Amino acid sequence: MKKATAILFSCFFCIIDLFGQSAQPYSFPSFSGYHTLLCDFHIHTVFSDGLVWPTIRVDEALREGLDAIAITDHLEYTPHDRDIPAVDFNRSYEIAAEYGNKKGLIVIHGSEITREMPPGHLNALFLSNSNMLKKEDPVEAIREARKQGAWIFWNHPMWTAQKPDGMAELTSLHKQLLKENLIDGIEVVNDNNFSDESFEIALKNNLAILANSDIHGLVDWSFPAPQTGHRPITLVFAREKSSDAIREALENHRTVIWHAHILVGTQEFLEPLIKASLVVESAVYQPKTSVVSITLVNKSSQDLYVENTGKFTLHNTGPFFIIKAGEKYVLEIKTISKRDQFELALKIVNAYIAPGKNIQVSYLISPEK
Amino acid sequence: MKKATAILFSCFFCIIDLFGQSAQPYSFPSFSGYHTLLCDFHIHTVFSDGLVWPTIRVDEALREGLDAIAITDHLEYTPHDRDIPAVDFNRSYEIAAEYGNKKGLIVIHGSEITREMPPGHLNALFLSNSNMLKKEDPVEAIREARKQGAWIFWNHPMWTAQKPDGMAELTSLHKQLLKENLIDGIEVVNDNNFSDESFEIALKNNLAILANSDIHGLVDWSFPAPQTGHRPITLVFAREKSSDAIREALENHRTVIWHAHILVGTQEFLEPLIKASLVVESAVYQPKTSVVSITLVNKSSQDLYVENTGKFTLHNTGPFFIIKAGEKYVLEIKTISKRDQFELALKIVNAYIAPGKNIQVSYLISPEK
Amino acid sequence: MKKATAILFSCFFCIIDLFGQSAQPYSFPSFSGYHTLLCDFHIHTVFSDGLVWPTIRVDEALREGLDAIAITDHLEYTPHDRDIPAVDFNRSYEIAAEYGNKKGLIVIHGSEITREMPPGHLNALFLSNSNMLKKEDPVEAIREARKQGAWIFWNHPMWTAQKPDGMAELTSLHKQLLKENLIDGIEVVNDNNFSDESFEIALKNNLAILANSDIHGLVDWSFPAPQTGHRPITLVFAREKSSDAIREALENHRTVIWHAHILVGTQEFLEPLIKASLVVESAVYQPKTSVVSITLVNKSSQDLYVENTGKFTLHNTGPFFIIKAGEKYVLEIKTISKRDQFELALKIVNAYIAPGKNIQVSYLISPEK
Amino acid sequence: MKKATAILFSCFFCIIDLFGQSAQPYSFPSFSGYHTLLCDFHIHTVFSDGLVWPTIRVDEALREGLDAIAITDHLEYTPHDRDIPAVDFNRSYEIAAEYGNKKGLIVIHGSEITREMPPGHLNALFLSNSNMLKKEDPVEAIREARKQGAWIFWNHPMWTAQKPDGMAELTSLHKQLLKENLIDGIEVVNDNNFSDESFEIALKNNLAILANSDIHGLVDWSFPAPQTGHRPITLVFAREKSSDAIREALENHRTVIWHAHILVGTQEFLEPLIKASLVVESAVYQPKTSVVSITLVNKSSQDLYVENTGKFTLHNTGPFFIIKAGEKYVLEIKTISKRDQFELALKIVNAYIAPGKNIQVSYLISPEK
Repeated sequence: MKKATAILFSCFFCIIDLFGQSAQPYSFPSFSGYHTLLCDFHIHTVFSDGLVWPTIRVDEALREGLDAIAITDHLEYTPHDRDIPAVDFNRSYEIAAEYGNKKGLIVIHGSEITREMPPGHLNALFLSNSNMLKKEDPVEAIREARKQGAWIFWNHPMWTAQKPDGMAELTSLHKQLLKENLIDGIEVVNDNNFSDESFEIALKNNLAILANSDIHGLVDWSFPAPQTGHRPITLVFAREKSSDAIREALENHRTVIWHAHILVGTQEFLEPLIKASLVVESAVYQPKTSVVSITLVNKSSQDLYVENTGKFTLHNTGPFFIIKAGEKYVLEIKTISKRDQFELALKIVNAYIAPGKNIQVSYLISPEK
Repeated sequence: MKKATAILFSCFFCIIDLFGQSAQPYSFPSFSGYHTLLCDFHIHTVFSDGLVWPTIRVDEALREGLDAIAITDHLEYTPHDRDIPAVDFNRSYEIAAEYGNKKGLIVIHGSEITREMPPGHLNALFLSNSNMLKKEDPVEAIREARKQGAWIFWNHPMWTAQKPDGMAELTSLHKQLLKENLIDGIEVVNDNNFSDESFEIALKNNLAILANSDIHGLVDWSFPAPQTGHRPITLVFAREKSSDAIREALENHRTVIWHAHILVGTQEFLEPLIKASLVVESAVYQPKTSVVSITLVNKSSQDLYVENTGKFTLHNTGPFFIIKAGEKYVLEIKTISKRDQFELALKIVNAYIAPGKNIQVSYLISPEK
Repeated sequence: MKKATAILFSCFFCIIDLFGQSAQPYSFPSFSGYHTLLCDFHIHTVFSDGLVWPTIRVDEALREGLDAIAITDHLEYTPHDRDIPAVDFNRSYEIAAEYGNKKGLIVIHGSEITREMPPGHLNALFLSNSNMLKKEDPVEAIREARKQGAWIFWNHPMWTAQKPDGMAELTSLHKQLLKENLIDGIEVVNDNNFSDESFEIALKNNLAILANSDIHGLVDWSFPAPQTGHRPITLVFAREKSSDAIREALENHRTVIWHAHILVGTQEFLEPLIKASLVVESAVYQPKTSVVSITLVNKSSQDLYVENTGKFTLHNTGPFFIIKAGEKYVLEIKTISKRDQFELALKIVNAYIAPGKNIQVSYLISPEK
Repeated sequence: MKKATAILFSCFFCIIDLFGQSAQPYSFPSFSGYHTLLCDFHIHTVFSDGLVWPTIRVDEALREGLDAIAITDHLEYTPHDRDIPAVDFNRSYEIAAEYGNKKGLIVIHGSEITREMPPGHLNALFLSNSNMLKKEDPVEAIREARKQGAWIFWNHPMWTAQKPDGMAELTSLHKQLLKENLIDGIEVVNDNNFSDESFEIALKNNLAILANSDIHGLVDWSFPAPQTGHRPITLVFAREKSSDAIREALENHRTVIWHAHILVGTQEFLEPLIKASLVVESAVYQPKTSVVSITLVNKSSQDLYVENTGKFTLHNTGPFFIIKAGEKYVLEIKTISKRDQFELALKIVNAYIAPGKNIQVSYLISPEK
């Protein structure tokens, strides 16, 4: 009983995969007329408590394949001010934007409103003048941001320095801000932290979900495999690659977040992302059998961990199998008799549409006989 | 002109692992006084339709860290007999055993009874004289094997050349053999094939489960990553590292099978194997929080894909995470308040105790505060 | 003082290079209308003292990118004859050739005349009937080979089992054979052994030089990095890819040998091979300087270790630099003033035209200004 | 929200090595009572035209295994002064030193005197107050440095922005400075540039040789394999690991420089470094032969490219062979008869004691018989 299975490995991904990290530059497929843009909306520089000049943030992002970053230095925390006087809070954005424009990276003007809990920290994006946000009352600062047309999200609600149990929870102040429509999104992932409670809050309160690095040091050093392997990234499904289009996508909550080995989003956007990422390339009955060889391709930068949940069992693996980033996998499925069509039903073990709830995708297969 | 130069590469094994394959030599931890032995009970050589001299099978096994192999050349299919006259069916075993004895590998005397379906192919292990099994009636051959004290299993019930739909199924002849206690085990995995139906048959009929390579060519070439990455291996939990102890373990069905990324066994043996493989090294509350950092170590050669199923959510990942073979993973869990003890409940997504049913393991954690 | 040098890595080679081995399948460029064919003319199977069926030798060769192999089982040493009766010495060739023909590998009919020293062992290639060479007197066997039109070479003159000091040396019998034109070539490399004395004998006596594996076990296991990293290979410069063309090339001594990290050949063929392997892709003066950036590409499977021996010094390295297999290297050279043309003179530290004598190559560079 | 999670990867360093880079952290052996310290004496931060906060320079150095760095921001070039007013030229040193002291890295107080050619740029190390060096006349600045007890070297004499032909050359001003003993050392390597002419100047004028990164961006991005693979490093042979001991070693010119694949130094210090790096572990005659197997170990982070220059030829390679960083190599040498002692003479192809002149080392071998 011997069978040779010819498998072609796309070299590119398998090199990088040696590090157990997803391939750089990262990439996820576009779908339904949307451009899948890789974004990080929470980033620091030497202008607050970060450790690099703003241009390094641009180069880091470009090396990883990001499409957009927001520079979001703290307004109220500037520990380098002995050497870098905190006189103009627009500077780090201006420096990054000038450099990013030349290099083809979208740089978004943001600031981090940095307060005790509540309300904790919030990022305001698409600002026109950060200096105007320097106000004693945090709510006033948020209102000023809104006045500038900012899109605002709550940072790291799971941060143990402000919430020692790490359990994201709306305070009455947050509820008031929500009521006033002053919060548009929430970080489900910040740095190395993930919060199912944040995800729950987002679902219940109709907030966009975000995964951001909150990077202070070097990205290359901060997210080592195997624990994470890449910075947290917010996938934004935008009508075009532009700052305005990102804003429109955020307003309409068209995001999926990528942290460590996990993708999280609502059914509405996670499903088409998975269907665009995991593609059936061919399906053909093996000669003289009722076993179909289905060639699946993973067009994303994330390995997909998959469970067969359909009614037919598999011929070359148990119900669990792995389709590596950028690679092909030949799945053999026993359809008992030769069929014109059947459903391939898969659970993606590392993709979630609600806390603890995996996404299911299905494919209608019409195998060659 | 041949000379062996022994060179030790400190880095050799970790390099291999980079290619997405499990590290060689493979290893799984022992437990409960049992030695976890890595075995392959279905192997061919030039003496039937294999392509290597028996000694190569010994060297292949030793390089991969196996403890025992069975040489099981076909009794009824000897396509090389123009050059290797099929006069003594003990020869391939004798040659491998003589060489294996010197090198410290257990070599078991087997033969493959090779018939049309039913009954298809069966392997008889622990034979004393293979030549006596050359009988026209397959049942007579099986009885002769039993007379010699053989331990007998059904090979590749999912083989599409004999069962075109690949659905393992007992025929009336198999039922008769079972009734006569002439079948002791069944291959759930053969070569690149896995069968949930075989597993079902094993569970219902109280048969030992096996995963064997049925190798004809070179092992190194036959199981490439990422589809499989290592030969199928039967883990045998034996009282000592000896041929007799393997036999005793097989008789008592103390096996777990390893194929591609999957481990399969009964709760009785898979659970202690997982508990010995995935070990809590330490647990400590992060200062001023109710978040516990639990350091888990994977002491096996198989990456473990894990889902958190306990009542507490995680702080550094969603419910799904990966603990690579031989590596550590620091899991952060939010216990809401500081606790003296709590249960860590995990589902191992790539380990099965019944078709489609994952194993659950739990750990009682007593964190340092 | 900061300068970014953009370097593109050809992914293919850099993957394989991870193992410190040259890339598989191996490849060296063709030149001057010759096809550079990768050949191994000394190979054993189970039909003498080898450990694999002849078809495995074909698959090994194809995986490594070889164009031709000779099957050269011993005529006088058949330790497997209890199981494989030594009745027809053509069989291993026939089996390999039938399989090789289907797969596109040239298989040459050879035999190893296996005697005490002198004359030691000799391989006869392009035989029609190996059985006719079974004669008591070795010279008679050689004459019979010649009668069949064989091309004959002396195997491993450095073998310490027959020459304990390893110093290849012509005996009076060898001198007589040379006088009778019964020896056409000599192994400078056999298995893991290299002999400067064999090379000297070849140069003095006008013999073709060969590097052969003399493989008995598995090629994959026998030549580990970093000591060797690939089997010894004879590069043959043939008018076409055919058995006849290989023979014509051997008769005219159009070979270069590849062992470990070293290439050895006569000036006549090593020079064009190096020039075809190490190619100047571009040369351009850096703006406002008299420093030329020369982009060199290594189109071979062997890393090239290079010393600058020209009159100008280098700007980005000392005189020694490395151009990895399949990769590019940007050399910066200081020409003092802007020149229309100048000579780039290089010593290839790992390529020899005589014992201890490296090849020198030069390139006329006409840089863009 | 920032948290450092310390994770140790057993495999981390050997992975890096796979990419053709030397292993990190780098290491070279100590000898003759000297500590071999890895140093980089030319480094920029955001305080002049660098792109990172001084503490990042400490972390970069520690990750690579360096023992000491000098922070040497420009005195006369501060392009970030809109945001970082150039009021105190000691600040970048102070910040790095405070952090380095905690982490165990020696940080040296330096400044770069940054002028037109002549004299071009000079680094002054071991300063007490950088601000005092702000003087119009460069010679006055240098004299002030000397007054503070500085150790002074000439930076990148091969820099094409100041010397368009890249040919390092003493001007009359440099000769005057030398006469006044105001220059102690010279960069033979700066960033990606190497200069044989600088080396020549050092030898003729009794200057210490240095290899420095002159890093402005990130070290990890600036020296990619295969062109360089690690930052330029000055190996300093110091009586202990301290700032004072480094100074004493520099004053006595106890340095060897490491750039790309090359080591450069005077015979006095390069020879013992090579002898400490390339060690004979054992030597034993192969049974019944006069061939000795010599096991060599490379205890350095640099692959060594070696040519056999002794009177005996080799048995397993031509005259050229490679001993990879951190690995063993078994050399087989044919001594013609069994000897009690013989000399192994080696040329290190990638180590230079003068422009174009390789170092020779020899070992007295007393093989076991």
